[in-house]
Amino acid sequence: MITRETIEQAHERIKPYIHRTPVMTSAGLNEATGCSLYFKCENFQKIGAFKARGAVNAVLSLSPEARSKGIATHSSGNHAQAVARAARIAGVPAYIVMPRNAPEIKKRGVRAYGGQIFECEPTQEAREQMLARLIRETGAVLVHPFNDYAVIAGQATAAKELIEDVPVKLDVVLTPVGGGGLLSGTILAIKFFSPRTEVIAGEPAGSDDAYRSLQSGKIETAQAQTIADGLLTSLGDKTFAIIREHIGEIITVTDEEIVQAMRMIWERMKIIIEPSCAVPFAAVLKAKEKFSGKNVGIILSGGNVDLERACKLFAGIYK
Amino acid sequence: MITRETIEQAHERIKPYIHRTPVMTSAGLNEATGCSLYFKCENFQKIGAFKARGAVNAVLSLSPEARSKGIATHSSGNHAQAVARAARIAGVPAYIVMPRNAPEIKKRGVRAYGGQIFECEPTQEAREQMLARLIRETGAVLVHPFNDYAVIAGQATAAKELIEDVPVKLDVVLTPVGGGGLLSGTILAIKFFSPRTEVIAGEPAGSDDAYRSLQSGKIETAQAQTIADGLLTSLGDKTFAIIREHIGEIITVTDEEIVQAMRMIWERMKIIIEPSCAVPFAAVLKAKEKFSGKNVGIILSGGNVDLERACKLFAGIYK
Repeated sequence: MITRETIEQAHERIKPYIHRTPVMTSAGLNEATGCSLYFKCENFQKIGAFKARGAVNAVLSLSPEARSKGIATHSSGNHAQAVARAARIAGVPAYIVMPRNAPEIKKRGVRAYGGQIFECEPTQEAREQMLARLIRETGAVLVHPFNDYAVIAGQATAAKELIEDVPVKLDVVLTPVGGGGLLSGTILAIKFFSPRTEVIAGEPAGSDDAYRSLQSGKIETAQAQTIADGLLTSLGDKTFAIIREHIGEIITVTDEEIVQAMRMIWERMKIIIEPSCAVPFAAVLKAKEKFSGKNVGIILSGGNVDLERACKLFAGIYK
Repeated sequence: MITRETIEQAHERIKPYIHRTPVMTSAGLNEATGCSLYFKCENFQKIGAFKARGAVNAVLSLSPEARSKGIATHSSGNHAQAVARAARIAGVPAYIVMPRNAPEIKKRGVRAYGGQIFECEPTQEAREQMLARLIRETGAVLVHPFNDYAVIAGQATAAKELIEDVPVKLDVVLTPVGGGGLLSGTILAIKFFSPRTEVIAGEPAGSDDAYRSLQSGKIETAQAQTIADGLLTSLGDKTFAIIREHIGEIITVTDEEIVQAMRMIWERMKIIIEPSCAVPFAAVLKAKEKFSGKNVGIILSGGNVDLERACKLFAGIYK
């Protein structure tokens, strides 16, 4: 399992290859919410998202022999770019299975890092079949998008930096939840480095499998009906076990609430975030009384959104 | 005239009321341009633009008696918000003349700071007539958007911070030029704090009065045919005198080049800048060979753009 030392070692391992992203504040958003917000800006991270952390840690944790035939993964987006980049750092090929309908900006990112894209139908089954075939044929090693302890330990370093860089004691830290890599990493970083801080997740109502999983006590399937295209997957057994034990609460938000939160961050903070990234701030807006007067950390997970798509979202066109 | 001490005193005076904005870099944009770019992010400044600096300096430089009847100005945008905020800091009224067609986001900003807006026709003459009447009727004191030494000294502090915060010696610093407040302030900061650095301005081809003024040796009138709505005005006698003596070069760029530069910064840096703010980066893209291999500072002047307007610009609709 992941210890305090695992996360510290991950941080040392990846430091040369990632940005220590800034923590931003906004007087306007503090006023609008009634709490003191500290935004950890992983939209400014390499590849535009926190996923750079986990992928670099996972690939560099492998022995040169283990990774010599390349790295394979499936991802609709940011993890794909992150693995392509991490493989390039290690000097080995990257084989990336992506759904046909993945955003063009994310496909371009994979190609820019020299990754080879294999397109499949946008179903979990099609992804897994193509990935299994690729691994069989190439001998590449899988770096799973979230259900992997090296990936989780890498994602944990974002919250570790946030804790180190804020001038206050955080009462709560929020992340979005999709497969649960960022959330479970954040939970462990908080457990080891700021144990009195609560961890809360925001989740799209249209893909609220993590919320339902907590209620039922088993991993529920994501319905994937949301504009937050980074949060379409179900939890894995490793992430679910960590989340289940330590999570404070999961707050679900509608697509309309996500777009409103995204717009407020664009307009007030002058930074670009993707829809999935707006989910925890949407949760704060929705449950203001819960956070009132508190020091609230939010991990802004990423900024990779086609501008045309963002324009449609702001115009109320949810396609 | 403005000395080294004037700028240092202005900096001390305004420090409690402004952000020391970050300097950002982008590996992707360095690669795209062939130079090392250091972006001074005044889009993250209070009111979303560098204008917060000059307005606070000008208002707080006035004696309590001189400012007791309030502050008046005319502005199509950021200076209006900046004066409204500075007047609120000083506890006096703000009377702001704005053209009817000023962006809604900027009018909202003025009202949010308690400023009173007086709308006029979008001509220089209408602005000045209404402003003169307001000053006569209220006894308010004028804080001019740019042709004022206290304003210029305030704007100079952005370049002063940039010089202090970059880890290298800058070969060039670029700003946009409209009325010339930021440019002349930058010129003086560079003269006193980094005298071997060259200052270059970017200017919209559709409002290239500063470019023409340098050629003719007298202040030419702005034609104001550009999407860069912060750069529609002609130079003043004070700004022209400073610019004329020290400027390296003015590079003009088309509206298409401005939108392309703006889009690159949004997509690669994940930050929001307004069209006027993209002008110096557009100049770097246009004259790449000139900047090749150099350390280049760019003052990103502001981030106040209606998202709907930005979406139209990206879609090629220049209205």
